[in-house]
Amino acid sequence: MADSSMTRNNPVILITGGTGFAGTHLVEYLLSQKERNIHVTSHSGRDNFLGDLIPKENIHKLDLSNQKEVEDLIKNLQPDHVYHLASISTVENSFEKMREIMQNNIDLQINVLDAIKKFSKESKVLVITSAEQYKKSEEKLSETSAIEPNNPYAVSKATQDMLAYVYSVLGLKIIRARPFNHIGERQKTNFAVPAFASQIAKIEKNQQDILKVGNLEAIRDFTDVKDMVRAYHLLMTKGEIGEVYNIGSGFGIKVKDVLEKLTRMAKVKIHVVEDPARMRPVDNHFIVADNSKIVALGWHPTIPIDQTLTRTLNYFRSQT
Amino acid sequence: MADSSMTRNNPVILITGGTGFAGTHLVEYLLSQKERNIHVTSHSGRDNFLGDLIPKENIHKLDLSNQKEVEDLIKNLQPDHVYHLASISTVENSFEKMREIMQNNIDLQINVLDAIKKFSKESKVLVITSAEQYKKSEEKLSETSAIEPNNPYAVSKATQDMLAYVYSVLGLKIIRARPFNHIGERQKTNFAVPAFASQIAKIEKNQQDILKVGNLEAIRDFTDVKDMVRAYHLLMTKGEIGEVYNIGSGFGIKVKDVLEKLTRMAKVKIHVVEDPARMRPVDNHFIVADNSKIVALGWHPTIPIDQTLTRTLNYFRSQT
Repeated sequence: MADSSMTRNNPVILITGGTGFAGTHLVEYLLSQKERNIHVTSHSGRDNFLGDLIPKENIHKLDLSNQKEVEDLIKNLQPDHVYHLASISTVENSFEKMREIMQNNIDLQINVLDAIKKFSKESKVLVITSAEQYKKSEEKLSETSAIEPNNPYAVSKATQDMLAYVYSVLGLKIIRARPFNHIGERQKTNFAVPAFASQIAKIEKNQQDILKVGNLEAIRDFTDVKDMVRAYHLLMTKGEIGEVYNIGSGFGIKVKDVLEKLTRMAKVKIHVVEDPARMRPVDNHFIVADNSKIVALGWHPTIPIDQTLTRTLNYFRSQT
Repeated sequence: MADSSMTRNNPVILITGGTGFAGTHLVEYLLSQKERNIHVTSHSGRDNFLGDLIPKENIHKLDLSNQKEVEDLIKNLQPDHVYHLASISTVENSFEKMREIMQNNIDLQINVLDAIKKFSKESKVLVITSAEQYKKSEEKLSETSAIEPNNPYAVSKATQDMLAYVYSVLGLKIIRARPFNHIGERQKTNFAVPAFASQIAKIEKNQQDILKVGNLEAIRDFTDVKDMVRAYHLLMTKGEIGEVYNIGSGFGIKVKDVLEKLTRMAKVKIHVVEDPARMRPVDNHFIVADNSKIVALGWHPTIPIDQTLTRTLNYFRSQT
C-alpha cells in the first residue's frame, strides 16, 4: 500500500538523453516541481552537472542503440513517465553521416518504444521529435502541415515521429512533441545562438578576433529552453494520448536580429564575418510555429528573448 | 563513338528487385519496347522465369543491404536508368518484424542512392515507394495528401520516400512513384487477390475445401500490373525530375466485389470463410488514388479488371 501510494505521489520518471541540453533543464524543472524519482540515461556515464542534482545511481550509463541494455533498464525501472529526448545530435548532421544518423536514431527509437511495449505498457511516453521535419513554407507551421524533411537529421526525426505514431496505434500511451528552436545555457555551440554567444565571450577575453557566422537571413522561432521543458511537463500531465503538439513561441525573428541583440550586449566591439563552412547545403527560410494547439492546453512562453540571451551570454562568459 | 551512340539508343537499365512481381512484368514490358540492356538484381540469384528472357549474366546476385556489393555493381554498370523496386516484401509486415523491416528497407535505400551519388550521378532513378504511407482518409489521395503510415511496412516506405527526396535535393535525378494496389500473374499469395485466386484454383482441383479470407469491406484501387509497369516506364521517360507521382486507376472497388467476380469465374461452388489470421491489426477502409498528375502526363489504365482477374486465375490454375 505504501509503495503504490508513493508511486502515485512520486512517479518514477525516466529521461532519455537526460544529460543533454534540454534534458538537464528538464531535470531542474522537475526538481522545482518536487519530483524526486528522476532517472536519466547517459551514453558516457559521466555528468558532473547532473551528479549534483540527482543521486549518482539514477544516472544510467547505457547505449540506447543496444536493445538488451534498453530492455533491462525499462524492465527494472518500470517508469511511470518517460521523457524520450535522446537522439544523435545535429553536430553530426551532414549528408556524409546519413547512414549513421538514420541507423542510430531509428535503432534507439525502436529499442525504447519496443521495450516499453514489452515490459512497461502503462508508461506514459512523451516522444520529442523536431519541427525540422516540416515541408518548406512561408506560413506558420501547424501539426497538420506537410512533412517533407530536406536533410538527414530531419529525415531521422520524421521517421522517429512516424514510429511513435505506429506504437501509439498499437496502444502505447504516447504523446508526440515537435519543438521549434530553443536556446539557453549549456546548448552545444554547433547551433547558431550558442555559437554567437561563445565566440563573443572569447572575443571579450581576447581569445578570438572575429565572430564567424552562417546564414543570418533565416527566420526562426526561438523559445527559452526553460519555457520549452515546462511545455514538456505540461504535455506529460495534460497532453492527449495519441496526439502531436508543436512547441514554439509563434513569433519569427531573423537570426541577424538575434546576433545584433547579442553584439549590443558585448563589452567590446564585435567584428562579424560570414563563414561558408557554417552555411547549410539546404536551409529553409522560415520555420515558425502555429502553436495554437499547445496554447489551448494552457502553455505560453513567459521569458523575453533579451533575458534568455543575457543568461546565455553570461553562461558562456562563465565557461570561457 | 559507336559505344556512346549505342548507350543513347539502348540505355543501360538496372531494375532492383527485378525478379519480383512488378519487376518481371517490367522486364517483359521493356523487352516489348525493344530495350536490350536490361539488368536486374536478385537476392537469391535464382530465377528461372527471367533466365529465359534476359542473359543470365544480367541477373546480378547480390544483397542490396550490403554497401560494398551495391557500390561495385553501380560502379561497373553505370546505368542510364535505374528502376528501384526492391524492398522487403509485405510478407514480413508484422509488428514483430518492425526492426528488421526498417533496417533492411532503409539500408538498401541509402546503399542504392548513395552508390549512384558516388559513382553514377547522371543516372535517372525511379524510386518506387507505396500509397500505404498516406494518412487514413475517406477522400481520394493526391500526392500532397498527409503522410501518416500506420504499420511497419508503410513507415519503411515513407522513410524510403523521404530519403529519395533528400537525395533529389542533393542533385540526383530522382522521380518518386507511389503505386496503389496492383494485381496480376506471379504476385505473392500474401496479398488478397492472389490469395483468392490461388485458393480457388486449389478448390477446383479438390486440394482445398474452403476459401479463407481477411477483411472484405476495404475499398482499394486495383490496377493491372501490366498497366502499372507501363506507368513506371512513362515516368522514367517523361516524369519530371524531383517530382512524385501517384499511380492508380482512380476507381475504388470493395475487396468483397473482387472476390465475387473471382468466385463467379470458378468452375465449382466456392465456400468462403473469414479467417481472423488474415485480418490486419490496423487497416484503412479506403485507399483510392487521385491520379490526375500521372493522367496529365499521358497515362491511363487500359485493362479492365475482369480481364486481369481471368488472367490471374488462369495463372494460378497453371501453377496448381
